Amino acid sequence: MTDRVDDTEIRLGVDRQRLVSRLMALGEIGAIEGTTGCARLALTDEDRAGRDLVITWMRDLGLDISIDSIGNVIATMPGFGDVAPVLTGSHIDTVGTGGRYDGNLGVLGGLEVIETVIAARERGELALARPLAVGFFTDEEGARFQPDMLGSLVYVGGMALEDALLIEDANGAVLGQELERIGYAGPAPVPGPAPHAFVELHIEQGPVLEDEDVTIGVVVGVQGISWTELTLTGQSCHAGTTPMRLRHDPGYVAAKIATHVRDLTDEFGEPQVGTVGAITLVPNLVNVVPSTATMTVDLRNTDEDTLQRAETRFRGFVALAAETEGVGVETRTLARFEPVDFDPRVIDIVEAAATGLGLSSRRMPSGAGHDAQMFARVCPTAMIFTKSVNGISHNVTEFTEPEDLEAGANVLLSTMLVLAGMEFA
Amino acid sequence: MTDRVDDTEIRLGVDRQRLVSRLMALGEIGAIEGTTGCARLALTDEDRAGRDLVITWMRDLGLDISIDSIGNVIATMPGFGDVAPVLTGSHIDTVGTGGRYDGNLGVLGGLEVIETVIAARERGELALARPLAVGFFTDEEGARFQPDMLGSLVYVGGMALEDALLIEDANGAVLGQELERIGYAGPAPVPGPAPHAFVELHIEQGPVLEDEDVTIGVVVGVQGISWTELTLTGQSCHAGTTPMRLRHDPGYVAAKIATHVRDLTDEFGEPQVGTVGAITLVPNLVNVVPSTATMTVDLRNTDEDTLQRAETRFRGFVALAAETEGVGVETRTLARFEPVDFDPRVIDIVEAAATGLGLSSRRMPSGAGHDAQMFARVCPTAMIFTKSVNGISHNVTEFTEPEDLEAGANVLLSTMLVLAGMEFA
Repeated sequence: MTDRVDDTEIRLGVDRQRLVSRLMALGEIGAIEGTTGCARLALTDEDRAGRDLVITWMRDLGLDISIDSIGNVIATMPGFGDVAPVLTGSHIDTVGTGGRYDGNLGVLGGLEVIETVIAARERGELALARPLAVGFFTDEEGARFQPDMLGSLVYVGGMALEDALLIEDANGAVLGQELERIGYAGPAPVPGPAPHAFVELHIEQGPVLEDEDVTIGVVVGVQGISWTELTLTGQSCHAGTTPMRLRHDPGYVAAKIATHVRDLTDEFGEPQVGTVGAITLVPNLVNVVPSTATMTVDLRNTDEDTLQRAETRFRGFVALAAETEGVGVETRTLARFEPVDFDPRVIDIVEAAATGLGLSSRRMPSGAGHDAQMFARVCPTAMIFTKSVNGISHNVTEFTEPEDLEAGANVLLSTMLVLAGMEFA
Repeated sequence: MTDRVDDTEIRLGVDRQRLVSRLMALGEIGAIEGTTGCARLALTDEDRAGRDLVITWMRDLGLDISIDSIGNVIATMPGFGDVAPVLTGSHIDTVGTGGRYDGNLGVLGGLEVIETVIAARERGELALARPLAVGFFTDEEGARFQPDMLGSLVYVGGMALEDALLIEDANGAVLGQELERIGYAGPAPVPGPAPHAFVELHIEQGPVLEDEDVTIGVVVGVQGISWTELTLTGQSCHAGTTPMRLRHDPGYVAAKIATHVRDLTDEFGEPQVGTVGAITLVPNLVNVVPSTATMTVDLRNTDEDTLQRAETRFRGFVALAAETEGVGVETRTLARFEPVDFDPRVIDIVEAAATGLGLSSRRMPSGAGHDAQMFARVCPTAMIFTKSVNGISHNVTEFTEPEDLEAGANVLLSTMLVLAGMEFA
C-alpha cells in the first residue's frame, strides 16, 4: 500500500481558481445580504447546508467519509487500510456576522490539497506512504454553544460526549438535539483515532503579516488565554447633586482598570496583550452615576509564567481600585487556557515548505484559539497562517487575496506530503 | 382687596398627614408594580390622569385654574383681581422609573400651603396682600420630550410655543398632538404673566443634607451644566492576534477620558463635579477591540468661569488622548446651561423661615435643573430642599421622611407669606 516518495521532484501546485470558487460557493450559504459576510452558526439549518455541500465535494473526490457522534466530519483518501492519515482541517461554522475565510479556508484548502494530490497520483507523479485526510470540526467558534473548539475538544477526549451533547445555547436549544435535527449525529466513536500528524491552514485574523509584508506565518503555538468578567457594584446617584467625596462610582473603577490593562501590557512588552472589549454601565445615562459596571478583561501571553504574573498584578490592581472607591467587585473566570506549543518538527517542515516555495515567512504565535491546539494533545501538530487584509476577521469585511490563499494552500500541500513520508520517534 | 398682614402672629403649620396622603394618592397613578415607584411620562395617559386628580384638589379649594397653551396649570387664590401672585409649584411628570416625591412634593406641598392659608384666613387669623398660587409645569423631566424644564421655559418666553409644539419623542409622537390628545392644550397665552415672586419646594435628589444631618437646604442657585457626547472611532480587531503597537482602541481612550474627568474634579475641588454616566462600546465583546466608543461627560459648577476652565482642560485632554491612540473623535454638546443665581432677598427669607421654625439649614447650590431656574429670569426666585434618603431620586426607591416633607412645606408656607407681604425694589 506504500507508494514511493521522492520529495525533490514535487513541484505540484493547487488550483487557485478552484479554491476561490469553492470558498465563494460555501460563502453563499448563510450569506449576509449586502455584504460578503456569512452567518452559519453551529448546528443551524445554514450549518447543515454548508456541511452537505462540503460533503458533496468530498464524495466527488472518492474520499472515505466518517461522521462522529459530535458531528465532526473527516474525509480520508481510500486504499490505505488502517494507516493513520496526515490530517488537515478546520471548521465551517461562523460567528453571527462572520466572513468567508475563517475556518473555511482550512477545510477547502485541505480539500484542494487532496484533489491536487489525487490528480498527481493518477498521473503517476507522486507516491504516498500514508493517506491524507481533511476534516471539519463542530462548533469551533463557540458563538452558539460554549466552549469554543468543541468538536475537536471532544475528538481528542478533552470533554466527554455526554457532557457536550447537553450544552444549551442562549435560547435553551440543546446541542445533542440540534445535532440530531440537522442529521449530523454520526456513528463514528469519540474520542477519535489519533492522526499521524495534524496541520491546519488558517487566516491570521491579525495584522502582523500584512504589517510586515510577509506571506506565510509559521505558527509555533497558541497564546495562553485568561478571560475575566468583573462586576463592580457601587451606589447610583445623581450626577449633579452628589459631591465627588460621597461617590462610589463603579464606572470610574472600570475606567481605571481598563487603563491599567494597557499600562500592564506596556510594562510587560510583547507578546503580552490585554484587552477590555466590553464595558456595560447600568443605567448608562448621562446624568446618573452608574450602580454597576460589568466589564471583561482578556489577557494573553505565549509564556504561562508571564501570563500568571500579569494575572496576579491585574487582580491586585482591581482589589485596590475597588476598595479605594468603596465599590464591591465580583470576579468570574470566563476562560483560562495555558499556552500550547506546537511540535518543533512540524514547525520546521512548515517553515522549510514556505522557503522551498520562495515565500517569505515568519514564526509567530497564534493569538486566537484553533482546532489545531486540541490535536496538539494527541499528535505532532502545527499551523500555517495567511494574511488577513487589515487584520480583520469575525467581520463581514474579512478578506484574503487569492494569491495569499493559494500560497497558504501550497505550503499546506508541501507540508502534508513531507509529513506523509516522515516517521516520528 | 388687601388683608392686614402681621408676620409675628403666624404660627400656622401644614397638615403632614394630608400632604402624605395626597402624595401617595398621586403616586398610585402610574404606580410601578411591586415598588413604590411611579411612571408618568409627560403627556401620556398617566400624566393626564395625574393632572386630572391634582386639578380636582385645586377646584376643591375654590382656586382659579388657568391652563396655558403648553399645558402648564396654575391655580390661584381668587378675589385678588390682577395682583401678581406669589407662585410656587413644580411638576408632576416623572422619569420612566421615578418616585413619588420628585416634582410632586413641590406641587402638593404648595397646595397644602394654600389649603392651610385658606383655612387660616377663614378663621380670621391671617391677612394677605397678594394671592398665593401653585402650578405644575409640563415636561420638566425631559424624559419623553427634550429639552427638560420645557413648560416653564415656554412660560417665561425662553422658547417659542410653535417650536415647542413640534418637538417629537423617540417614537415620533409630536408634543402638540399629545397635548391636544390628553386635553391639556389650554387657552391661556404663553409667555405667561410674571409672578410677584417664585419659590419651589423640592427634594434634594442628593446626599448632602442627610450626610450632614441638616433638615433644610436653602438653595442659592443652580449649577451650570455642560453635557458632552463623544464618539470615538478606532479600528476593531481581534484581541488575541493584534499586537498592542498596532491598536487604535477607542475603548481605551474612553477609559482614559473617564479617569481624567475624576482627576479634573480632584484638582478643581468642590463644587466642581464631573461624571461619565454612559459608555457604549461596539461590538462590546470580550475578545474584540471595539470599533467605536460612545460616552457622555457631565461637568457642573456654580461658577461659570470655573466651568469654562474645566471644559477647556477637558477638551484638550480628549484631543490629545485620541490623537495619541490614533482614534477619531466627534464631539457633540448635548446641553449647556450657565449657572443660575437665585435672588438674595428670597434666599434670605427662606433661611430666616427655617431658622424661625427651629429647623437646621445650610445654603447650597442645586446640582439638578428645576423649573425655578426658569422663573428666576422673570421674578425674584429661590428654592427649598428637603432630604432625600440615601440621596436617591429618579428611582423607584426615592423616599423622604414625612417629618422632612412637613418641615419643607412649613418653610414654604412661611416664605410665601413673607413674600406676599413684601415689595421688591
